[in-house]
Amino acid sequence: MASHIIDFLLIGNNFGTPEMRTVWSEQNRLKQQVQVEVALAQAEGELGVIPAQAAKIIVERADPSQLDIDDIAQQGAQMKHSLMPTLIALQKQCGEAGEFIHYGATTQDIVDTATVLQLRDAFAIIQRDATVLANELSGVARRYQHTPMVGRTHGMQALPTTFGFKVAVWLDEFLRHLTRLNDIKPRTLTGNINGAISTYASFGPQGPEVEKRTLDILGLATPNIGWQSARDRFSEFASVAVLISGTLGKIGNELYNLMRTEINEIEEPFSAGKIGSTTMPHKRNPAALEGLASLTAPVLKSAALIYESMHVEHERDAMSWRAEWIALPEICIYLSAQLQNAIAILRGMTVNEARMRRNLNMQGGLLLSEKVMFELGKKLGKQTAHHVVYECAMQAYEQQRDFKETLRAHPQMDNSISDDELNGWLDPVNYLGSAPRKVDEVIAAAQASGLLEIRA
Amino acid sequence: MASHIIDFLLIGNNFGTPEMRTVWSEQNRLKQQVQVEVALAQAEGELGVIPAQAAKIIVERADPSQLDIDDIAQQGAQMKHSLMPTLIALQKQCGEAGEFIHYGATTQDIVDTATVLQLRDAFAIIQRDATVLANELSGVARRYQHTPMVGRTHGMQALPTTFGFKVAVWLDEFLRHLTRLNDIKPRTLTGNINGAISTYASFGPQGPEVEKRTLDILGLATPNIGWQSARDRFSEFASVAVLISGTLGKIGNELYNLMRTEINEIEEPFSAGKIGSTTMPHKRNPAALEGLASLTAPVLKSAALIYESMHVEHERDAMSWRAEWIALPEICIYLSAQLQNAIAILRGMTVNEARMRRNLNMQGGLLLSEKVMFELGKKLGKQTAHHVVYECAMQAYEQQRDFKETLRAHPQMDNSISDDELNGWLDPVNYLGSAPRKVDEVIAAAQASGLLEIRA
Amino acid sequence: MASHIIDFLLIGNNFGTPEMRTVWSEQNRLKQQVQVEVALAQAEGELGVIPAQAAKIIVERADPSQLDIDDIAQQGAQMKHSLMPTLIALQKQCGEAGEFIHYGATTQDIVDTATVLQLRDAFAIIQRDATVLANELSGVARRYQHTPMVGRTHGMQALPTTFGFKVAVWLDEFLRHLTRLNDIKPRTLTGNINGAISTYASFGPQGPEVEKRTLDILGLATPNIGWQSARDRFSEFASVAVLISGTLGKIGNELYNLMRTEINEIEEPFSAGKIGSTTMPHKRNPAALEGLASLTAPVLKSAALIYESMHVEHERDAMSWRAEWIALPEICIYLSAQLQNAIAILRGMTVNEARMRRNLNMQGGLLLSEKVMFELGKKLGKQTAHHVVYECAMQAYEQQRDFKETLRAHPQMDNSISDDELNGWLDPVNYLGSAPRKVDEVIAAAQASGLLEIRA
Amino acid sequence: MASHIIDFLLIGNNFGTPEMRTVWSEQNRLKQQVQVEVALAQAEGELGVIPAQAAKIIVERADPSQLDIDDIAQQGAQMKHSLMPTLIALQKQCGEAGEFIHYGATTQDIVDTATVLQLRDAFAIIQRDATVLANELSGVARRYQHTPMVGRTHGMQALPTTFGFKVAVWLDEFLRHLTRLNDIKPRTLTGNINGAISTYASFGPQGPEVEKRTLDILGLATPNIGWQSARDRFSEFASVAVLISGTLGKIGNELYNLMRTEINEIEEPFSAGKIGSTTMPHKRNPAALEGLASLTAPVLKSAALIYESMHVEHERDAMSWRAEWIALPEICIYLSAQLQNAIAILRGMTVNEARMRRNLNMQGGLLLSEKVMFELGKKLGKQTAHHVVYECAMQAYEQQRDFKETLRAHPQMDNSISDDELNGWLDPVNYLGSAPRKVDEVIAAAQASGLLEIRA
Repeated sequence: MASHIIDFLLIGNNFGTPEMRTVWSEQNRLKQQVQVEVALAQAEGELGVIPAQAAKIIVERADPSQLDIDDIAQQGAQMKHSLMPTLIALQKQCGEAGEFIHYGATTQDIVDTATVLQLRDAFAIIQRDATVLANELSGVARRYQHTPMVGRTHGMQALPTTFGFKVAVWLDEFLRHLTRLNDIKPRTLTGNINGAISTYASFGPQGPEVEKRTLDILGLATPNIGWQSARDRFSEFASVAVLISGTLGKIGNELYNLMRTEINEIEEPFSAGKIGSTTMPHKRNPAALEGLASLTAPVLKSAALIYESMHVEHERDAMSWRAEWIALPEICIYLSAQLQNAIAILRGMTVNEARMRRNLNMQGGLLLSEKVMFELGKKLGKQTAHHVVYECAMQAYEQQRDFKETLRAHPQMDNSISDDELNGWLDPVNYLGSAPRKVDEVIAAAQASGLLEIRA
Repeated sequence: MASHIIDFLLIGNNFGTPEMRTVWSEQNRLKQQVQVEVALAQAEGELGVIPAQAAKIIVERADPSQLDIDDIAQQGAQMKHSLMPTLIALQKQCGEAGEFIHYGATTQDIVDTATVLQLRDAFAIIQRDATVLANELSGVARRYQHTPMVGRTHGMQALPTTFGFKVAVWLDEFLRHLTRLNDIKPRTLTGNINGAISTYASFGPQGPEVEKRTLDILGLATPNIGWQSARDRFSEFASVAVLISGTLGKIGNELYNLMRTEINEIEEPFSAGKIGSTTMPHKRNPAALEGLASLTAPVLKSAALIYESMHVEHERDAMSWRAEWIALPEICIYLSAQLQNAIAILRGMTVNEARMRRNLNMQGGLLLSEKVMFELGKKLGKQTAHHVVYECAMQAYEQQRDFKETLRAHPQMDNSISDDELNGWLDPVNYLGSAPRKVDEVIAAAQASGLLEIRA
Repeated sequence: MASHIIDFLLIGNNFGTPEMRTVWSEQNRLKQQVQVEVALAQAEGELGVIPAQAAKIIVERADPSQLDIDDIAQQGAQMKHSLMPTLIALQKQCGEAGEFIHYGATTQDIVDTATVLQLRDAFAIIQRDATVLANELSGVARRYQHTPMVGRTHGMQALPTTFGFKVAVWLDEFLRHLTRLNDIKPRTLTGNINGAISTYASFGPQGPEVEKRTLDILGLATPNIGWQSARDRFSEFASVAVLISGTLGKIGNELYNLMRTEINEIEEPFSAGKIGSTTMPHKRNPAALEGLASLTAPVLKSAALIYESMHVEHERDAMSWRAEWIALPEICIYLSAQLQNAIAILRGMTVNEARMRRNLNMQGGLLLSEKVMFELGKKLGKQTAHHVVYECAMQAYEQQRDFKETLRAHPQMDNSISDDELNGWLDPVNYLGSAPRKVDEVIAAAQASGLLEIRA
Repeated sequence: MASHIIDFLLIGNNFGTPEMRTVWSEQNRLKQQVQVEVALAQAEGELGVIPAQAAKIIVERADPSQLDIDDIAQQGAQMKHSLMPTLIALQKQCGEAGEFIHYGATTQDIVDTATVLQLRDAFAIIQRDATVLANELSGVARRYQHTPMVGRTHGMQALPTTFGFKVAVWLDEFLRHLTRLNDIKPRTLTGNINGAISTYASFGPQGPEVEKRTLDILGLATPNIGWQSARDRFSEFASVAVLISGTLGKIGNELYNLMRTEINEIEEPFSAGKIGSTTMPHKRNPAALEGLASLTAPVLKSAALIYESMHVEHERDAMSWRAEWIALPEICIYLSAQLQNAIAILRGMTVNEARMRRNLNMQGGLLLSEKVMFELGKKLGKQTAHHVVYECAMQAYEQQRDFKETLRAHPQMDNSISDDELNGWLDPVNYLGSAPRKVDEVIAAAQASGLLEIRA
């Protein structure tokens, strides 16, 4: 019986993917903790810190799949300790060799390093999906590179652009995100095995070697010095997740707005059997887009929470890490849903080019006021041109007249300008500027960066 | 397999109580939604909006306990709708009468009102536990009303106080919290049944009557106007939870600091078998106190999230309510753990009065510098007295000498002051001010308020 | 030279009103602190704690307008103390009586109580403006009570409503806000005069009486017990500000969306000389609306900050109160700009009723699918009706045909339904439900509540 | 008259440095905006977009120091535009050439790029001070590399460590911060000159070249594509500020705790004339440390605010950027105070080695329970050793006896262990593990990284 929406059968998939939930499941958490204990024993066996034979038995017999999680839970409640019952159960599995499990380690060593192992899998999923998404963005930018549409500022129609240009801005953002993931990866995926207060005292003089060997076995980086009291790595990861989620939320919101009945320039993927409303049969809602847009706020709040875990007292406390236990899975899980959702939307959405064209023309030419001003400026001087165009634009707006008509009627208008010329200025397609060129450049940059390669 | 820590078998109880988790469980959510549908049908039957016979059958047969949640989840995924499959299943239970389930209602009506039903149970738990806690605080304040201890400002010893006084401040805070809960209760526990965009159009002209009757049956208040697009009530509830949680976190942190090895004035309840550390046998950690202190930050972050749900677009959107679905249960669940934890701590903690007394004396009288200054001031003038006392205090501090000795040695000291008199000034017990009196007053105010009464 | 945008000459008025900035100005802060010292001296004189004559002189001579703020700043830097130099300067003003300024008090007493005095003025402004706004909302709701417009859910056209109904929801929200302000006012406006660690020791046995008399003079409530270590009152105030600001941000965003070029149902007040863009002459931007919408996020963040001030250590610390000094003025200042901005918008905005009507019809009748379904249901049975209407709606949408036409063409359509009847169902004005009635009810509730009365 | 504490004369320096406030002052903002206009004119002159002569005049005559800020403010209020009045004033300065100021540009181009210029100066200050601080940390870590002190977990004494080790953890954190600053620098310091909706249309076909040349002149990087609607760079900068501030707040809190009367292991710099309290002459408060600790929360809240600026609608909106205008200066200013404060504290604090030694011994040997357990384990077997040590430790704790005595008295104790041996185990200096070695390694890593070099 689940009480957090992430774990709900009915709607949990709107908040996370099954794949990412598995990474952060209680079972996998336990499994990764056992994996750390086993690697530690192996390393200590190799280095002679514990008997080689004991290490061998631990490696062979310690088996998280045989642990009775209900039983462990009961004992944990009595001991008021989250790891001890697991250790006792593992010791039983290993007989006398069990005495050498967890040798010299502190709970935090195991819990932290296991969390990093989980995070490694989560990181790989995020990196994979962000790369897939960047590829989709590249494809969509290319496909609609020359598709004219209205550009809007302050919610108001401003100037023409292309749909591909809009998407190229997102692609460029994802290139930065992918670069950021590469930048932080080695810092993030660093283990932590250094004893009760990170001085390695309980491992004897070979402490640092035990840590290095254990983390090598696990495929994690070794820190310069223990980080039990320095939690910036998780916060840095959260920060990059915030940036990625920020872009995803923006995309969701943008497409949601473009799908409004009155704009209607795109439609999110519609599948047979999809119900918009229990009571309004005509409704086709942007459910996926709202889902995409809505998960940024939770990611931001979880990041705000994990930041506070940096406030560790002394060599360690149990107040700060609770924030990590809550927030790190949340961030990864919400983000996983956003990424998969965004990929599906980009792949399946409908782009309504005809409506884009209609919207370009709905203001009777006003959209091109800037163009007309610059062209007239060449003839009338910029100051006069601005004056003429401003007056005509306000007239057109207030009297709901055609902009061209008000221009023609203006006393200061240069009548040597031909109708063809004026029509040309007022054609949105002639005022796309460098939008298509920039699409080329961003896609070229993406390809040159190597960031679009999807690794297995 | 749970992925959110709230649902973890091993450590979930550190983050919530089973009782509160049950309120917010997926099963109970479904059950409350069915309850709303049933009440609606009953109301509509009574008012003639649907056939009375159909209403009767719905009331008799609609049975949430017979719903197949896995099956509903599968259909929900296809329909991309969270309520429709439940409605279909209910309709099947009711045969032809099933056509009249959910008559005129929109999904939001059901989901919102069911959430308020869950919140009503959560509210009752919080109110109950806050009241129990206030009683405990009252008891502790009374017990230690006259127990002298060091008062500290800026982390430094400042002046004597009593432990009961410290606790009375907390009690007074809880009296305000209980008043706040009473203030917001009718606003919070208000249902919402008014159709697709709150205009009641689908219910016919009796819409407002349908809503009122349905909510009367459910025991909820009726709003002046629908609140599908006005979500301030949940945020107001969250705000009061923030205040309560803020006090609880402060208490946890305070007692954690008083339990420090070097201060050692209290100890949290210790139970046999409790393990402090897997590697340091001597450790007795403030695990419960850290738990208490650590859950305030998550409550604050969830509140920050729910506040954003107030940003509804138009008559309704699906972006804002997701924040509520995440945050509202989180707030209640974390807070439930804090309240129960605080009650247990107050009941079982050890107060080390001897150590309190020792700490009062550890600075060799410096703690009473203010008292000495005021007394000397009567004889030497306040300005001179401040000068003398400041010099003696700095000497005592820097040379690690007894304060009394430095006073006696000061050339401006009034030597008519007898040793008994000086000793009296330097005795912490003589400088408790109105601390004990205030304990009496706060407890009296608590009793007079009626807020300490625990309702079943 | 200001570095925070609140204090900027050029754009500061977008972030706060001059009136509210004055309340929180450094000069006024100092002035209120002096006012507290004076009231304290007066009270102590009356109670015989200090000589009556000294009190008299302090009351007469202490004059904040004569303080040299630059000089105080310099000395404060040396003493690393924020109040001491002010005290010294006041003492100079009062001659020998100056020795009795601040008698028995601690810095926190003065700073806290002065902050509450500032907050009292801020509170009055907010209450006044919220009341004025509620009156405006009431007027607008009444004026457009019957003005039909599209209701939207998920950004998509859903059903008809009226503009007055939309505004009545906001009015109802403001009634709750005004009630909340009344609820918290006595708790919020409570002073705090109780000595170094709130035990009153330095005031002698009459401590509580000194506090009560001082606060009576200042017109503030007296607490049950000192709140140096219990900061929930400021956070509670912030919470109510959050709710008010949340509604204001929602209104800003809503009107911003209604002003979109493609929707164009309202326009914010336009004044001669207003420039939309330095480069696009036709632009008329929703600058005021964006301003209104944009200040909710800062208020929420400042509230999140002030909540952390509840985490006081021991009897007092200087970490928590810094959050208050930053956040409390911010909240009041941002909110003041929102309130004044909202009032001006409501008074001056243009409502484009013709365009509202046009938007109601832009989907060729689909907007009324629910109505048709309910009406057909009476004839065909609800199940069949839903089936027919869903098919016709999807056809109309996908083939861009008129809804009525697809209905007529459906084989299961009941042909006894006359064209007049069908036209009646498809007329938005006939499907406003209880929207106008609810406007009446909310306005009546507002008037009955007494909350609309603007107090001087 | 300032209303935000950052601008207060009396206490503003507790919240920011004069140097950093100057960077974000209104005057400097205006100056940098003019600098962008000038660079743009120069670039356009070179590329033939505007007449070369006009460009020359603009470069010569545009002079921000001659702008009348009060006049600009008045006009801005009328035009409801923040840049236009500045442009008009500049045009006047340049005569006819003034027509070519701001040619093709949109307000956002200027405002964004000027903000990046301010941020460049802020970035340099932060990088410089973080480097200075890292050097200080390195020095302190070296000086106290072998100074034994108590390590604490959960607020309780745990095991011995050295003060240098504690500081080396901070140093290692700052190495990561400095690396992060290097990583993000080129991304952060990127300008933005691309016209109304970033398509460069108004610049003609050479738009991208105009942007590149302008930004080259200004010394900023050129983006792949305009970022008016992609604000991740500011949020990324804020994220790194959060991490730096997180470490600084932690250091402040740690030293605050170590300065507690009962621990007394360090003291913050004390200067003559410093006043701890207006009423308690003996108080020497950790004012600087509380200041250091207290500014992390505001930085985190401002970061949370700036994150929301990523949520841009369409090609641009004025809701998101307001968050930047508020939050970016706040983050830099608070952080500047933290950095300078931390440097001063590290340079001037007193380390009380004698008290550190006394605290190591205050538990009568219990601190070494782990060491004893491991050593006994070699003789008795680990299981038995744990049993013996746990029993003796609990006895020692509960009966307040010496740990060594309880060990000697235990029936299972191996009596072949000599007193010298046992004393050796119980000597904290013998159980520092690899703490001093790690200090060497971190300092060596710091030196090898080149990150400690302070650039002019």
